[in-house]
Amino acid sequence: MTHNALIDRDRLWADIMALGAITDPARPYTRRSFSALFLEGREWLEQRFRDAGLSTHIDAAGNLVGRREGLDPNAGSIVIGSHSDSVPSGGRFDGMAGVIAGLEIARDLRDHRIELNHSLEVIDFLAEEPSEFGVSCVGSRGITGMLSPVHLALRNKRDEPLDMALIRMGGDPARLEDAVRNDIVAAFELHIEQGPVLEGNELDVGIVTSIVGITRIEVTFQGTAGHAGTTPMTLRRDPLIAAARLIGWIRDTAEAFAMRGQGHFVATTGIVEVLPNASNVIPKTARIVIDARSENRGLMEEFCRKLDTESGEAAEAANVDRVGLNRLSDSMPAGCDPALRGLLHDSAEALGLSCVEMASGAGHDMAFMSLVAPAAMIFIPCKGGRSHTPEEWASADAVAAGTEVVLNAILRLDGKQI
Amino acid sequence: MTHNALIDRDRLWADIMALGAITDPARPYTRRSFSALFLEGREWLEQRFRDAGLSTHIDAAGNLVGRREGLDPNAGSIVIGSHSDSVPSGGRFDGMAGVIAGLEIARDLRDHRIELNHSLEVIDFLAEEPSEFGVSCVGSRGITGMLSPVHLALRNKRDEPLDMALIRMGGDPARLEDAVRNDIVAAFELHIEQGPVLEGNELDVGIVTSIVGITRIEVTFQGTAGHAGTTPMTLRRDPLIAAARLIGWIRDTAEAFAMRGQGHFVATTGIVEVLPNASNVIPKTARIVIDARSENRGLMEEFCRKLDTESGEAAEAANVDRVGLNRLSDSMPAGCDPALRGLLHDSAEALGLSCVEMASGAGHDMAFMSLVAPAAMIFIPCKGGRSHTPEEWASADAVAAGTEVVLNAILRLDGKQI
Repeated sequence: MTHNALIDRDRLWADIMALGAITDPARPYTRRSFSALFLEGREWLEQRFRDAGLSTHIDAAGNLVGRREGLDPNAGSIVIGSHSDSVPSGGRFDGMAGVIAGLEIARDLRDHRIELNHSLEVIDFLAEEPSEFGVSCVGSRGITGMLSPVHLALRNKRDEPLDMALIRMGGDPARLEDAVRNDIVAAFELHIEQGPVLEGNELDVGIVTSIVGITRIEVTFQGTAGHAGTTPMTLRRDPLIAAARLIGWIRDTAEAFAMRGQGHFVATTGIVEVLPNASNVIPKTARIVIDARSENRGLMEEFCRKLDTESGEAAEAANVDRVGLNRLSDSMPAGCDPALRGLLHDSAEALGLSCVEMASGAGHDMAFMSLVAPAAMIFIPCKGGRSHTPEEWASADAVAAGTEVVLNAILRLDGKQI
Repeated sequence: MTHNALIDRDRLWADIMALGAITDPARPYTRRSFSALFLEGREWLEQRFRDAGLSTHIDAAGNLVGRREGLDPNAGSIVIGSHSDSVPSGGRFDGMAGVIAGLEIARDLRDHRIELNHSLEVIDFLAEEPSEFGVSCVGSRGITGMLSPVHLALRNKRDEPLDMALIRMGGDPARLEDAVRNDIVAAFELHIEQGPVLEGNELDVGIVTSIVGITRIEVTFQGTAGHAGTTPMTLRRDPLIAAARLIGWIRDTAEAFAMRGQGHFVATTGIVEVLPNASNVIPKTARIVIDARSENRGLMEEFCRKLDTESGEAAEAANVDRVGLNRLSDSMPAGCDPALRGLLHDSAEALGLSCVEMASGAGHDMAFMSLVAPAAMIFIPCKGGRSHTPEEWASADAVAAGTEVVLNAILRLDGKQI
């Protein structure tokens, strides 16, 4: 594994486990953003940051920042961060591993008495996961000036607006511009892969080329509800037939697009809603939601054009109406910085770790951070590629190896002799 | 329209409207079996039966019977009946039209001083629609000895068993054998078509050849849930892909079977359940429920065999498991009596009404009655073929014409000069 390790594998691991233990006991592992448990986790984290010699504050966008001043006040800041919030019944690594990796790097620098020219910030970005307000990446949006009044007016089920919740988290929605940064020279994030590629190929780390853009499209077909026994086959206007044909086409087309060699492409039909959904009634409406992801915007636009054509043809063939084709959301792909990727690559090589370049199929805070700073991500293998489940797992060695790579890259970026 | 009409069109119509008005006002037209409203409707019906000179009783299976003794005590009984219960938010004709048609025929015989050799019974069969106990055709099952202890132990959401509910309806579950009949020489039912064929072809009545057997099959595919962004297309085990392929195959195959000329065949996928049904998660399971109906049992068995093969192949192609292929229910087709069909045909012709022979794609009490007696059905056109909806509609003329045909056939059966 790693040579001349600077990081303390067991301390890193113990803190990941300790943060994970702050969970809703009824459904481990749950620590939802904006909850009392989330604040409890943050209190623990802030104390850990202070113990590591970092000065701490909550910025206007609700991010917990632990800062270590650099020798050169004009050198700018290096950020390493991720998020401490979880999905419901999620795992202990998605987000948390990256935050604790940052904390560990700060401790290692202190332990080994390494002073950086750059300032170092460890950031726990607020609410990376889809929150109860229906928006994700709240904190990193804030840092990049992308948290809008429309977002701030979103309400949760208790009718609390996001701006009030942000105040509860220690943020300041009235001064959001204070959270926007222009001093960051590099932003790193360590994250579990959440997919099967690294484990399947027995690789130590993945260096992320880009974070996919995600386009969610809702297609609704409408026909005529009818008695399942008395309506002859030839007189039916069954919207499920059009939806079924489209689901098959989406799969076939995504497979073909993925094999083109034009970058990561996946498309999934995850939601199907049939009304009235009764065994003896020909459906009246069928609604599907498609999640398509690509690091190549051109490929995504081509997919959307073809989906438009195909869904229209599927409706016509089934003698039903396509009453909706709506983009529910649409985000651009975000490239990771080539220079930082090079540094991570050199570090992995120097540490004797195998690595591969790969796209991130999941969204991350770094997609927003890349709008204001050079940003890069490193993936570590996770068991079975599983995530967002209590079984989510990465080995202590894997977390340590990834953290070592980031620390090594930070030292290189700061001009240290390795 | 009809000549020398014996029946009173306006009285018949007024009573259909009056029975329909006994409804849950919040969701017309709803009069669910076993409810207080159902008993209110029955009380109204029983009074109407008595006003028509019928003696009334509730049999052990909960059927409301209005009886008019025949001149010949050995001639047996002619039954005309249907059901007064409705689906939730249903219509005013499905079932009700047939019960009131029977009542009207009894009144016409009295008004015109026609004495039959046979006894005549007007029956409101209990709970033809799927009841809150999950079983349909409770009363006609009872008359044919098909109401089993398993049925009687079924419970509704208030944990009341069916046998207790039957007592509330005036039945006697301890003496169910008393309800079984062997004296019926003919059972007639008038019903709206619940489909578009008669209206579409401008026909007055349909003479039912047989009532389809209904086979409900549940197919469940299981794959592996996964992150919609990070799981490459080639590594997916997406059960929805298998389900979508099967839904298309079911439609294509049903169309082909329907065109074979081997009798009525339809198949519908009415229920689709995808888990977890989230836009960013590759589904873990996809479950569909198929409703297939045929008057030809051989055709149904062939369909089921091919469904077995095709669903297995669809699972294999999608690299998922077909974890279930279950017949949820399975009823045999029931032929209508050829002699009674002939009488109905002669009657329609004599009355100058156009008619067609057709299968019933819906289940009816007559499917059970055919097990203990010659049974026959006549369909009348309904607007847009719609049923089980508040918009369900048949014209006063259409109901009157159908009732006239049944009365005419009863007179022929009884040996009267027409």
